[in-house]
Amino acid sequence: MDRSWTNSSGVDLYLEMPSGRGRRAAVETALRNAIRTGRLAAGQRLPSSRVFADEFGLSRGTVVEAYAQLTAEGYLRTRAGSGTEVAGTSGIRTRGSTEHVAEAVSADFRFGQPDLSEFPRSLWLRALRRAFSTAPTAALGPVDPRGCAVLRTVLADYLGRVRGVLADPNSVVICSGFSQGLRVLCDALSAAGGRCIAFEDPCLPEHRAIARAAGLEITAIPVDDDGAIPELSRDVAAIVLTPAHHAPLGCTLTAHRRREFVRLARESGAIVIEDDYNGEFRYDRQPIGALQGLAPDHVVYGGSISKMLAPALRLGWLVVPPTLIDGVIEAKRTADRGTSTIEQLALADFIETGNLDRQIRRVRPRYRRRRLELLATVTAAAPDISVTGAAAGLHAAIKFPDHGPTESDVLALASDRSIALTGLNQFWHNGNGKPGGLVLGFATPAQHAYANALSLLHTLLCDVFPST
Amino acid sequence: MDRSWTNSSGVDLYLEMPSGRGRRAAVETALRNAIRTGRLAAGQRLPSSRVFADEFGLSRGTVVEAYAQLTAEGYLRTRAGSGTEVAGTSGIRTRGSTEHVAEAVSADFRFGQPDLSEFPRSLWLRALRRAFSTAPTAALGPVDPRGCAVLRTVLADYLGRVRGVLADPNSVVICSGFSQGLRVLCDALSAAGGRCIAFEDPCLPEHRAIARAAGLEITAIPVDDDGAIPELSRDVAAIVLTPAHHAPLGCTLTAHRRREFVRLARESGAIVIEDDYNGEFRYDRQPIGALQGLAPDHVVYGGSISKMLAPALRLGWLVVPPTLIDGVIEAKRTADRGTSTIEQLALADFIETGNLDRQIRRVRPRYRRRRLELLATVTAAAPDISVTGAAAGLHAAIKFPDHGPTESDVLALASDRSIALTGLNQFWHNGNGKPGGLVLGFATPAQHAYANALSLLHTLLCDVFPST
Repeated sequence: MDRSWTNSSGVDLYLEMPSGRGRRAAVETALRNAIRTGRLAAGQRLPSSRVFADEFGLSRGTVVEAYAQLTAEGYLRTRAGSGTEVAGTSGIRTRGSTEHVAEAVSADFRFGQPDLSEFPRSLWLRALRRAFSTAPTAALGPVDPRGCAVLRTVLADYLGRVRGVLADPNSVVICSGFSQGLRVLCDALSAAGGRCIAFEDPCLPEHRAIARAAGLEITAIPVDDDGAIPELSRDVAAIVLTPAHHAPLGCTLTAHRRREFVRLARESGAIVIEDDYNGEFRYDRQPIGALQGLAPDHVVYGGSISKMLAPALRLGWLVVPPTLIDGVIEAKRTADRGTSTIEQLALADFIETGNLDRQIRRVRPRYRRRRLELLATVTAAAPDISVTGAAAGLHAAIKFPDHGPTESDVLALASDRSIALTGLNQFWHNGNGKPGGLVLGFATPAQHAYANALSLLHTLLCDVFPST
Repeated sequence: MDRSWTNSSGVDLYLEMPSGRGRRAAVETALRNAIRTGRLAAGQRLPSSRVFADEFGLSRGTVVEAYAQLTAEGYLRTRAGSGTEVAGTSGIRTRGSTEHVAEAVSADFRFGQPDLSEFPRSLWLRALRRAFSTAPTAALGPVDPRGCAVLRTVLADYLGRVRGVLADPNSVVICSGFSQGLRVLCDALSAAGGRCIAFEDPCLPEHRAIARAAGLEITAIPVDDDGAIPELSRDVAAIVLTPAHHAPLGCTLTAHRRREFVRLARESGAIVIEDDYNGEFRYDRQPIGALQGLAPDHVVYGGSISKMLAPALRLGWLVVPPTLIDGVIEAKRTADRGTSTIEQLALADFIETGNLDRQIRRVRPRYRRRRLELLATVTAAAPDISVTGAAAGLHAAIKFPDHGPTESDVLALASDRSIALTGLNQFWHNGNGKPGGLVLGFATPAQHAYANALSLLHTLLCDVFPST
C-alpha cells in the first residue's frame, strides 16, 4: 500500500511536549523522541507547518525552524510536492518488516479449505455493495448477539431447503465461524453446570482445545466405518458429531446410529452438537439430511461458510433448541457482543439471489473429479493402502499399514519436497498405538495446479511404499 | 429483499423420500412434509420438473404429476414465467415474520455510538473493493489469530502517531471489537491462574459481565473528579481503566494518578488494561496520550473502531506486553480462531489513505459543538444539576441531587415521551445509595435531529426539576 497521504492537513498526530523549555526546543524534542522510539515510522508524512502550528498553538515560524533542524539532523526529509516526512534512517523501525512471506509449496494438500481461487470475488463484492446501499443507518449501530434478523431468516429457509434442518429464525444464532459457535456452546454448557463433552475419536484437535478453554473435560467416542459408535457415559453434557462426512475419516453416520444417538440424548438429557462438516458436498447421491431434523429439541445444528466460500469470512451459524437458546445468546454476548453486520447482510443477499446455490453447483463436479483422481493416484502408487470414507467432502484420509514407514517418516519426506500434508496422528485423542496416516485436502490447490500436485504425491507414495 | 431466484435450476433442495411406496407418492409426501413443518417456506421457488427429476433420479412425468397434485391441494402454486413455488397458505410459516420493527424514538440520547449517518459508506466500500482487488488468494484462507499483518503494521504506526502508544506489529492482536479484546484478556489471565480483576466504579456493566463469564471475580476502584483512585488489593491480576475519558463519568485520569497506577502495577505484577475509550475525541486541547506509553511492559492498550466509525464493524485491537502475548493469542485462537479478514484489510487501507484521520477531523468539531449545546440546555433547564467530565468523548453524565426526583422517575417519564435515555445507576457495581443520573450520548442523533432532541430534553428536565 501507498504510504503517502492524499491530504496532509488530515494527519492526526500525538506528541508529548516537554515543559520548561523554549517552544522550538519542545517541538524538536517531542518529534525526536517519537521518531527514536519508533512511534513515528520511516515514511510517515507530517502535517504542514501551518497545520502543525495551529494544532499545537505555536507560531508557524517555530514549526518551520523545528522541521529544518530535524531535517538537518537526518530525522526528517522534505520531498518536493509532498511535504515533510520521517526519514528512513537505518536503525529506525520501518514498516512491513514483520510481514510474513508465505513459504513456497509445490503441492498443497492442506486440510480444511476449498479452492480459494474459485472464490466469487466480484459477486461477493456486489453483495457487499447491495448490503451497504440498502442497509438502514441503524444497521451500523450496536449489534444483536443473535445476528442480523434478515440473515437468520434467510438461513432458516436455506438450511431447511438444502439440509433438512428444522429452523425458525429465532432459533438461529450467527457466529464468527463454526469454531466460535462451538466455543459459545461450550461456554453456555459450562455456565449451566455441564462438566464433560464427548468428541469423536479421531476429531479436529482445535475443537478439543476449544472445549478445554471453556473448562470442559473431554471423553472419546470411537469411530468405525459406520461413523461414531453410539454410547454415552452418565456425566456427558454434550456429544459433538460430524454425521454428514466425518472429520477426518470421511465416513457417514448410518441411519441406525443416528437414531441411536438421538435416543441416547433423549434418555440422558445430553445435547447432540451436529457439526455439519461438508454437508453440502456429496458426490455419489443426494446428501443425507441433517441429524437435527430427527430431533430438533435435542440437537444443536452447526455450520459455516468456510468450506462453501472461504475460511477468511468467519461466518457460521447454530440452530439451537429452546432449552439452550438463552444461554447461547448470553454466551455470544459476553464473547464479543455479536458478529460484524455488513458481511452478514452480504451473505443474506448472496443466498437470496441464488448465488450460493450456483457457487456450490459450480465447484461440486470439480471436487468430485478431484476426489476420483486422488483415489486413482493413491491406488496406483500404493495398492495396499486405501482411502477411507464416503464420496463426499473436501478431504479423504488414508491409514498406513502397521508395518512399514511411519507417519512422521512420510511427513518428513514431504516436508523436504515442499509438499504440504496433514498427518492423521494429531486427530486422535491419544495417538499412542493408533494408526498413522494422512488427511488429504483435495480442494486446496488451484485447478491448474492439481494435476502436478497429484503427480508429486504419486512419486512420494511410490518412494515411501515401494512395491515389493 | 427479493424472493425470486434468478436461475431456478440453481436451487438446491433436500428432501426425505419415504421408502416402500410408489415414486410419485414418495415425492408428494416428502414435499408435503417439508412444507407442513416449515422447512420449505411460503414463496420458496422449486426447481423445474426437469431439474428435480434429474436430481432425484425420477422420470419427469412423475415430478410433473406430483407438482400438479400438490398444487391442487394448495401446497404449491404455479406462476406464469416463474415456475412453481410454495403457496402462502395461512398457517404455513412465512418469511420475515420475526423481523423486529424499531421503536420510534423522538429524541435519541443512547450511549456508546457515533452519529451513524456520518458513516462514510462510499469511502468504506471503496476500501473494501481495494482490499478485494489487491488481496492475494491466500488472504481468503485460514486466518491468523493475531489478525492480518498489514493491519497490525498500520495500526502500530497509527496508534503511535495519534495516541502515543509504543507498539510493534507483533505486539498487536486484532479482535472483534474491544469487548472481545477484554474477554480474550480475561480468558488469558484466568488460564494463567488469575482470580480477580478490578474495574472502576462506575464502569460499563457489559464489561463486568464479560469478566464474570471468564470466571474472574470483580473488585471496585472508586472514581472521583480526577479519575480512578490508585489503590490495589493483593490478589488483583488486572486493573481496567478508562484514562482518556472515563466511561461513564467523563473525567480524565490525572498525570499524577497515571504514574501511581503504573507504580502499583510494577510493584504488584498486576497488568493495567487501558480501555482508550474516546481517546480520539478531545475538544479543548490536544488529547492526552495513552497511559501505555508510560509503561508498555505493564499496560495492555485496547481500542476499537466503534466510536470512530461504527459499532457494527466489530473491529478492535490490543497492544500486549511480551509476557502476556502468547496467552492472549492462544485465547483468541480458542475464542474464534481469528477475526474476519476482508474488513481488516479495508481498515488498513482506510487508515493508510488518510481517510480515518479525515473522518475524525470532520466529525470532531460537530461533536464539540453538540457537547456545548447539551451543557447549555442542561444548565438552562436545571441550574442546580451539572454535567460532569472533561470536554471530550461522545457522552456526558449528570448526577441528580439527593433530594428530588429519582432516576427511575426521570426514565419513566422519558419513556412515556419516547426519549431514549440511559440511567447512571446500572454503571455502579452496587447501585444502592449511589447517586442516580443520566449518561447522555450526544453523538447518537443525526445532525438534523439534534436541535429537536435537545428541545425535548430541555422540556423533560424543566418538568422534572421545576425551578423553585
